[in-house]
Amino acid sequence: MTTLATASTDCCAAASTPLMPADRAVCLAEIFKALGDPTRVRLVGYLASAQGGTVCACHLPDELGISQPTLSHHLKRLVSAGIITREQRGRWAHYAVVPEVLDVARAFLGTTTGDARCC
Amino acid sequence: MTTLATASTDCCAAASTPLMPADRAVCLAEIFKALGDPTRVRLVGYLASAQGGTVCACHLPDELGISQPTLSHHLKRLVSAGIITREQRGRWAHYAVVPEVLDVARAFLGTTTGDARCC
Repeated sequence: MTTLATASTDCCAAASTPLMPADRAVCLAEIFKALGDPTRVRLVGYLASAQGGTVCACHLPDELGISQPTLSHHLKRLVSAGIITREQRGRWAHYAVVPEVLDVARAFLGTTTGDARCC
Repeated sequence: MTTLATASTDCCAAASTPLMPADRAVCLAEIFKALGDPTRVRLVGYLASAQGGTVCACHLPDELGISQPTLSHHLKRLVSAGIITREQRGRWAHYAVVPEVLDVARAFLGTTTGDARCC
């Protein structure tokens, strides 16, 4: 692998693995970007703790301190990133975390060896 | 815990745990936001794979396809978020991942039970 300094001093070893493919980095960055908001972090944590894995919109806590349109925006953002799913059941929408997507991000953070598979 | 719909239909159970504290969500979101960029994901993965844990700036790969100022911007962003450290050794800066910070994010993604401690 070439480096920024073609005639670098021999000050240290290079990393042992090559850069991860750009498309995989884009995929991971999209997941992290969607989680890069405190409200969305709280929503994901709340949904992930649901017994049965699904939470009706009627049970999303008003302790979030945000308006309904803002809440809808954040939920849509998480659905768009594939982190949660939305299913309409009669009057209410139901939301659930997609563990496989969180696992992709978690595997990257845990191993950071480039072995974790992306979406 | 009160909910958005005070007189909700009994369509499902609420989540079993309360919302995580707002300050912890802010902390986690800052980590995720810093990782929400493909170049920064690649840099973290590259640095984390370094033998000895540290990479000299002279060994950062030019396969990233970005200019030196852009690279510096991304490195500063990661340092600012506490995800990597920067140490000047003579002519070159050396960078290393801070595993404890990545572990905080990883614990959230793995358990999402609100038990992982934040910075």
